[in-house]
Amino acid sequence: MKANPNSPLPVSYEDVAAAAARLSGQAHRTPVMTSSTVNARTGASAFFKCENFQRMGAFKFRGAYNALSQLTPQEKKRGVLAYSSGNHAQAVALAGRMLGVKPVIVMPMDAPPVKLEATRGYGAEVVVYDKHKVDREAFSRQLAEERGLAVIPPFNHPHVVAGQGTAAKELIEEVGPLDFLLVCCGGGGLLSGCAIAADALSPECKSIGVEPELGDDVVRSFRTGTLQSCHNPDTIADGARTHSMGDVTFPLVMHYVDDMLSVSDPELLKSMFWLWERMKMVVEPTGALAATALLEGKRDFKGARVGVIISGGNVDLRWAAQQMLKS
Amino acid sequence: MKANPNSPLPVSYEDVAAAAARLSGQAHRTPVMTSSTVNARTGASAFFKCENFQRMGAFKFRGAYNALSQLTPQEKKRGVLAYSSGNHAQAVALAGRMLGVKPVIVMPMDAPPVKLEATRGYGAEVVVYDKHKVDREAFSRQLAEERGLAVIPPFNHPHVVAGQGTAAKELIEEVGPLDFLLVCCGGGGLLSGCAIAADALSPECKSIGVEPELGDDVVRSFRTGTLQSCHNPDTIADGARTHSMGDVTFPLVMHYVDDMLSVSDPELLKSMFWLWERMKMVVEPTGALAATALLEGKRDFKGARVGVIISGGNVDLRWAAQQMLKS
Repeated sequence: MKANPNSPLPVSYEDVAAAAARLSGQAHRTPVMTSSTVNARTGASAFFKCENFQRMGAFKFRGAYNALSQLTPQEKKRGVLAYSSGNHAQAVALAGRMLGVKPVIVMPMDAPPVKLEATRGYGAEVVVYDKHKVDREAFSRQLAEERGLAVIPPFNHPHVVAGQGTAAKELIEEVGPLDFLLVCCGGGGLLSGCAIAADALSPECKSIGVEPELGDDVVRSFRTGTLQSCHNPDTIADGARTHSMGDVTFPLVMHYVDDMLSVSDPELLKSMFWLWERMKMVVEPTGALAATALLEGKRDFKGARVGVIISGGNVDLRWAAQQMLKS
Repeated sequence: MKANPNSPLPVSYEDVAAAAARLSGQAHRTPVMTSSTVNARTGASAFFKCENFQRMGAFKFRGAYNALSQLTPQEKKRGVLAYSSGNHAQAVALAGRMLGVKPVIVMPMDAPPVKLEATRGYGAEVVVYDKHKVDREAFSRQLAEERGLAVIPPFNHPHVVAGQGTAAKELIEEVGPLDFLLVCCGGGGLLSGCAIAADALSPECKSIGVEPELGDDVVRSFRTGTLQSCHNPDTIADGARTHSMGDVTFPLVMHYVDDMLSVSDPELLKSMFWLWERMKMVVEPTGALAATALLEGKRDFKGARVGVIISGGNVDLRWAAQQMLKS
């Protein structure tokens, strides 16, 4: 697939603004944190939008709630299905509970236990599959057809993208125009949504996606203009193990994103614990991707106003403790 | 010492309000967090005032800055001395740097390494002592006399108490009247300051202090009306290992505080990690005292609006990782 510059784009800023209205009073308006230690270390003025403090611990609630709230009454009655490496699952489960829609969640059997448990805790039915044997999309489609469920994909849906963009909308409305906006990237839902919001609210702002080196399909897609993929990349950033972007996010990323950066897993782990220690925030590996690009100086941000999306905080603490004591 | 109900009290709400004006633009106005998971678990509406996101990672900055900014020009020129198990040290070091006052910090040699390091990182001269052999107050007084330094005590000073009270002032101004305010307690500086603010801004609010069971001198002082002490209690709540209250905090606690509760170290550790996992906040053991009283149901808070001060987040992550893997 090549991004076609002549096709109309599937999500506009008006969609993000409409999502913000739907989310008002339902999603947390998460705090923006600053740190003189970060600014001294990087030479930038950094503004961290802390979606780890969002409901269910990640930005994913925004997109899920925005999508579920636009289902027809019939669709709501039949229920929804989501497939997810974790946070999207919890997001759909929680949004389902809030909107009275029964959620069925398809998750890989080796997802972090804290995420499986939390998803069940939100009242969802969890169906697990072996990601080494089964294609999750095909598996999910079949299950959805059998039960008549509406599928809420984790990123490749205009309503999901629009919902995620509300994070950047809130950030820029709170702190004013930015020079850069750093956003982690798995399938490009958060990245493209935030880039759309930044383009509208801070037109000079350069939106930059950050991927793990081990799962750099979006970096390669961005450089080549052709959709690239990677298969179950072995990165600790479990939210960015996505196979590839989709036909919704790919053209949006090509249109709205200014650059893509990647960071190594050791850099990511180091920055993640640095955020824990210095900013007192529990951030999951994927959630630390954007901050790592800043802290590791992957580009010169000196003197710039830099927005950084901290995307989530759902990490298995015992796993993290083991990583820390190994380091 | 017995608290004398006829003596004029050493700190008033006007002092807290004046401290708030001095701290404006200098201290972070820390976020107030809510959690539907906490509310579902406790039956209360809980509002967490997150001083772990304060400058240098704890509320102590408030009192230190308020005290240092009221020194005479001569005192500022000669410098200050502080003795502290950790957070007060960093607070005086940072406030000193901001106000151009040279800080000398007396710390126990077995203070958490992260705290010793951070204090030096703020540019302070650190003098260590052996807490098993030397009385820190006598040691500090002698050093201060030799060098002509003004001593900034960690809690027993009206300017320190007034500064700490600004945390509760901000909380109540943001969320409105409370039924209960839960505050951790070491020497009673934060507790008494916050209770003064609550009394003025939310007169029906009951202020409750929370201590570790192993260092329950304030619980016993409160019950008997006579100042009690404990010597180097072996609690993980290192900020609450204080020997006893002082002549400033004791009468304030007796006058303004409605009740005292205590929690065990295992309860504290469990709640601390629960806050990490569920609220995505790095909280130090002392910082989790007040939340533990709520989460462990030490009193019936059902249906009540409960303010909870999270006092700090300066914990050695390697120590915490070891504790987690042991549990």
